[in-house]
Amino acid sequence: MVDIATRVWNHKWKIDPIVRSLIDTDFYKLLMCQSVFRNKRDTQVTFSLINRSSHVPLAKLIDEGELREQLDHIRSLSLRRNESTWLRGNTFYGKRQMFRPDFMEWFEQLRLPPYHLERVGDQYELTFEGAWPEVMLWEIPALAVLMELRGRAVLNDMGRFELQVLYARAMTKLWEKIEKLRGDPALRIADFGTRRRHSFLWQDWCVQAMYEGLGDSFVGTSNCLIAKNRDLEAIGTNAHELPMVYAALAKDDAALAKAPYDVLADWHEEHEGNLRMILPDTYGTEGFLKNAPDWLAGWTGIRIDSGDPATGAETAIRWWKERGEDPTKKLVIFSDGLDVDKILELQRQFAGRVRVSFGWGTLLTNDFRGLTPDDRLAPFSLVCKAVDANGRATVKLSDNPNKAMGPQDQIDRYKRVFDVGAQERLDVVV
Amino acid sequence: MVDIATRVWNHKWKIDPIVRSLIDTDFYKLLMCQSVFRNKRDTQVTFSLINRSSHVPLAKLIDEGELREQLDHIRSLSLRRNESTWLRGNTFYGKRQMFRPDFMEWFEQLRLPPYHLERVGDQYELTFEGAWPEVMLWEIPALAVLMELRGRAVLNDMGRFELQVLYARAMTKLWEKIEKLRGDPALRIADFGTRRRHSFLWQDWCVQAMYEGLGDSFVGTSNCLIAKNRDLEAIGTNAHELPMVYAALAKDDAALAKAPYDVLADWHEEHEGNLRMILPDTYGTEGFLKNAPDWLAGWTGIRIDSGDPATGAETAIRWWKERGEDPTKKLVIFSDGLDVDKILELQRQFAGRVRVSFGWGTLLTNDFRGLTPDDRLAPFSLVCKAVDANGRATVKLSDNPNKAMGPQDQIDRYKRVFDVGAQERLDVVV
Repeated sequence: MVDIATRVWNHKWKIDPIVRSLIDTDFYKLLMCQSVFRNKRDTQVTFSLINRSSHVPLAKLIDEGELREQLDHIRSLSLRRNESTWLRGNTFYGKRQMFRPDFMEWFEQLRLPPYHLERVGDQYELTFEGAWPEVMLWEIPALAVLMELRGRAVLNDMGRFELQVLYARAMTKLWEKIEKLRGDPALRIADFGTRRRHSFLWQDWCVQAMYEGLGDSFVGTSNCLIAKNRDLEAIGTNAHELPMVYAALAKDDAALAKAPYDVLADWHEEHEGNLRMILPDTYGTEGFLKNAPDWLAGWTGIRIDSGDPATGAETAIRWWKERGEDPTKKLVIFSDGLDVDKILELQRQFAGRVRVSFGWGTLLTNDFRGLTPDDRLAPFSLVCKAVDANGRATVKLSDNPNKAMGPQDQIDRYKRVFDVGAQERLDVVV
Repeated sequence: MVDIATRVWNHKWKIDPIVRSLIDTDFYKLLMCQSVFRNKRDTQVTFSLINRSSHVPLAKLIDEGELREQLDHIRSLSLRRNESTWLRGNTFYGKRQMFRPDFMEWFEQLRLPPYHLERVGDQYELTFEGAWPEVMLWEIPALAVLMELRGRAVLNDMGRFELQVLYARAMTKLWEKIEKLRGDPALRIADFGTRRRHSFLWQDWCVQAMYEGLGDSFVGTSNCLIAKNRDLEAIGTNAHELPMVYAALAKDDAALAKAPYDVLADWHEEHEGNLRMILPDTYGTEGFLKNAPDWLAGWTGIRIDSGDPATGAETAIRWWKERGEDPTKKLVIFSDGLDVDKILELQRQFAGRVRVSFGWGTLLTNDFRGLTPDDRLAPFSLVCKAVDANGRATVKLSDNPNKAMGPQDQIDRYKRVFDVGAQERLDVVV
């Protein structure tokens, strides 16, 4: 039976929105936003889209009008009542009222600030300028919009059954991964795939399939909207943008060297338990841990987001032992470029030695590799980063020089201040 | 948006019917039915279900109550007005009014006769007795019901996403076959998969996918209901039951030897063109062709339904040449146990030498092999045959002794009368 009203309604749509809600974003964005709102509210920042995969000519693939439509739609969003209620009333990481009333009042009034879009050659320059707590919320929706519009351009040429088979193949591919992961009940995996997902509906499917297939091994999703709708845990802590902006704001080299720890001192005041996760790689994991204050060794764990993950975990284990901590009580979260074989390998290697968890991103929610001719749906490496804070360029080094960002003279300065030695170059796939 | 009415309606269903219409059957059944109605209306026959795959314990898998419900539902069906209109008004094989008014009047009044169902060990004995034109219409729905109920028993234990992935895998599997078949625009393939399909909805999907994927290479479906709903050609001519019953009715050996040709003489009066297809293997292809009257060599083609298909086609080509016919004008339809590699192989071997067409059955509409643990959804060899006509046992030999049927003494007699020599035993998969 055709539901006529639904059909007419669908036909009336002016736009098929990619981002449907202000909380269709990563949970850690909201945690960080609250921290920034409290500690650095007036910092002026610029976020900028960076397509690390320059062979993907985004401006040729994506119509500028459609892109503006989607971005304008995002600017029209504001927090819905049930979303606000969920953020105010839900238990996150075992804690009620994680989001404070003053932050929630501000968030309830928020609309995202303007964007600047310009075509330059075959790429788009897309930037967002303004107060840090507002601008930072553009990152995830901007990435999701570009990734999905590129996908839609490819899907547009396909037949009805061809499309159904495409999704059949993608479902089969994910389910085979889930079947591989099923063997080990000790596994703990969360969805971290919002930003470079194939689409919202697909991410929603992936999350539900993971939940049915893995049961308790699937611990939740970073996507707040999906967590709310599907009654799952919202997962996430903090990210590089905090140390990057704090560092850019530093007055001199001494303040710069201290900046990454200042971030975590602020975080320490606000959060406890599983939210006390160190992200040590912004300016090199080795140096960060060596110079860390002792109270940081008391934190719950470390997230490993660049460099060779096993090396990173070994470094963390060594560091905890040096500081008199028991690594088996500590949590290591792997979140960089994971796919199922790497997950199983790391689980085998570290289960029992530390508590292990995985934040599985793009290859969970966008593994359309090999499903179309010329691989035109394969995910690619798109990021949206703070590039400037109060007029000063930001810098990221990470444990992989291929992920480094910032002006060369500043990169050199940061390498000197943070005593970063030789680093191994690793390919960035997604 | 939930369509509440549909949902409530679904929930109210007492039965999810497997066979929804009297024309959810093979087109050749209706053609043969009309021929029988005209020539042998009063013949009393028994049709009987035979599970050649005795390792599949149908009575353990399928609840007897559910089976009766489905069979009772079929007995409640009568020809709908739009179905009758389609049969009366549509063009079949280029001809209008293929179905005569007297036949249609009879068919419009028809309800299927009673069935006899008994559990014997792990199998069901399911038989149908009565006037030939009525009883013969049980064959296809009875097979479809047993095949689908067995499938439903397996599906019943599966989770929601597991189910979706099952169908995703089946879709992917079929699409990969379609992609393989796409290369050759000269290919001609029809769906012959009604009787042992996974389900009606799945057959309907397969037919539509074939149509989108193969375009003109997909020439139609044997399923009348799907042909009607999807505006496709209904495909089919005649089957073994005609010579089997005619042969059983023969008074003596001389009449028996003539019986297969009597069938085709009756058919010759009724049909022309592409409907004049010889099915030569009922009592051995070699002998049948050797002793065939010359007018049969003028028929359009031959359908090869048992034995090694290439051998069968070579035999036909040789026979046409002997009778002074041009094989390149003749049609060979392969319809026995086909899958995509065999189709492509036969096409390569015979395209250009004869006109080639394929009736693709069970491995089009029910290739769930390898998609569940223990292969519990794999198709198996189930048939429903005329076993008795006016109190005399029927016999089928075919070109594969593994497909032979009937009492041994009668098999021996038929082999003698039809001069059948040594035959190659070939496995029967589906």
